[in-house]
Amino acid sequence: MRGDHRIILGIDPGLANTGWGIVEQDGSRLRCLAYGCVSTPASMELSQRLLKIAQQIGAVVDRFKPTCVGIETVWFGQNITAAFSTGQARGAALVACAQGGLMVGEFTPRQIKLAVVGEGTAEKDQVQYMVKQILGLDDVPHPDHAADALAAAICYVTHGPRAQRT
Amino acid sequence: MRGDHRIILGIDPGLANTGWGIVEQDGSRLRCLAYGCVSTPASMELSQRLLKIAQQIGAVVDRFKPTCVGIETVWFGQNITAAFSTGQARGAALVACAQGGLMVGEFTPRQIKLAVVGEGTAEKDQVQYMVKQILGLDDVPHPDHAADALAAAICYVTHGPRAQRT
Repeated sequence: MRGDHRIILGIDPGLANTGWGIVEQDGSRLRCLAYGCVSTPASMELSQRLLKIAQQIGAVVDRFKPTCVGIETVWFGQNITAAFSTGQARGAALVACAQGGLMVGEFTPRQIKLAVVGEGTAEKDQVQYMVKQILGLDDVPHPDHAADALAAAICYVTHGPRAQRT
Repeated sequence: MRGDHRIILGIDPGLANTGWGIVEQDGSRLRCLAYGCVSTPASMELSQRLLKIAQQIGAVVDRFKPTCVGIETVWFGQNITAAFSTGQARGAALVACAQGGLMVGEFTPRQIKLAVVGEGTAEKDQVQYMVKQILGLDDVPHPDHAADALAAAICYVTHGPRAQRT
């Protein structure tokens, strides 16, 4: 990886909250450029919520010009309604990524935990602590969705573009 | 409804095949203006598949200028992977609908069957036969995804915009 310079987007998709984070990789050094969360209230009409996710992720892509994105795939502890809802948000976010020509790496929660903590069964707070350490942040990123998005971006550094069949 | 004139889009979302259909309502008369299916091969990168769905549904919206869309919601016979996959396609399609300012009606399979056949447990071929009859088509629309999309549009005529919590 040494010598590589690239901007990596991470996304933690969700209809109510889609976390995002931007990681700059300079050789083996990783730095957080920005992070945030797109929130949409349940009172908002569904297609408008999805449009807001697509537009705001599109604005992040336009601003930071990442060349690739790490994104978590479905986890099987979810119920069908949650998987469907997350899937819709993920579809909206990935449309914005495809418009920006980003390469996509899809990772299971286990892969992300392994890449960030070195332990596939790590707890959520361990992941968040390691995100802070790896990126040299003063604090754990809030909300959790942003920290999870940065974890997905860090996972991309190790794994590169890779598709989980979903 | 008499006196109403409107153009209604129906969508049957799926990552491999997203059916669409356009129904013109003129008072109590319904007419099919066009239908089709956006197919994306599994060999194509996920975000590019989703972008193709969003772009092609967007092109249908631009061409026929529907003011509303009927779309099927998740059905609980699906497994999690299928629900997630369908959710992503639905998210991409709904982003295109939101860009066009369409009102959205979300319907369960049971609501669609009830609206089209008058029987919530109707078989697939009964739904397709009734779509053909209601719209005065010479043949059952192919592929099935297009017929299912037209059924969702017909359901919108009865139900109007309505959200299923998903």
